[in-house]
Amino acid sequence: MNKIEHIGIAVKSLEISNEVFAKILNTLPYKSEEVISEGVNTSFFKMGDSKIELLEATKADSPIAKFIEKKGEGIHHIAFDVSDILSEMERLKNEGFVLLNTEPKKGADNKLVCFLHPKSSNGVLIELCQEIK
Amino acid sequence: MNKIEHIGIAVKSLEISNEVFAKILNTLPYKSEEVISEGVNTSFFKMGDSKIELLEATKADSPIAKFIEKKGEGIHHIAFDVSDILSEMERLKNEGFVLLNTEPKKGADNKLVCFLHPKSSNGVLIELCQEIK
Repeated sequence: MNKIEHIGIAVKSLEISNEVFAKILNTLPYKSEEVISEGVNTSFFKMGDSKIELLEATKADSPIAKFIEKKGEGIHHIAFDVSDILSEMERLKNEGFVLLNTEPKKGADNKLVCFLHPKSSNGVLIELCQEIK
Repeated sequence: MNKIEHIGIAVKSLEISNEVFAKILNTLPYKSEEVISEGVNTSFFKMGDSKIELLEATKADSPIAKFIEKKGEGIHHIAFDVSDILSEMERLKNEGFVLLNTEPKKGADNKLVCFLHPKSSNGVLIELCQEIK
């Protein structure tokens, strides 16, 4: 684990929340990206060496729609930057953590990603992400 | 806002969760601190330029005890490092955000801190913190 790559925040409206977070962070989002496989629109704000990612559902069965239905808007996950996602997945599996995907999958922002089940990590949804070279 | 200073995670047992996060992050907590005014025991893990802070309640009316009672263990807040907390508090108040304390107060880790009400920030509890020189 190298650093906090980003914090993912579930929002109902990217348009409204882009304005809210632009005010809080005192900076504008620098990019926006749709991840069709996950059913989300995302926007990113640079914050030091990390990012804030806002996530808006694009369909009713998107994980973000379900999260908001259950818990309301708020922090959805923490993503950690890793150099070698396969070896980190192996290491964490051997430590007893439950991986939500058995193979790394393509996420937003040119990353290979894997999620840990929050039940095995104190209620925190954790994402590993490795930059695709 | 300079960077993500830390992410605060509410846990039932610091002892158990220190072990869980030491495995996830592959590093040991580097310090532990009680903040009597907030009714919490904390521990800190270094993660790149930021930190992960675990928070355990030390009394029944601690904000962390109430949070866990309502929502369960999980991510409690995001803290941003600021150079001048008074001017950031003034800026955010003028932008319409609700501050949970009108004056900066002494937090963990040698910081002056102020929280924003999550109702005005998309359900996210945000902490401003300035290092005490």
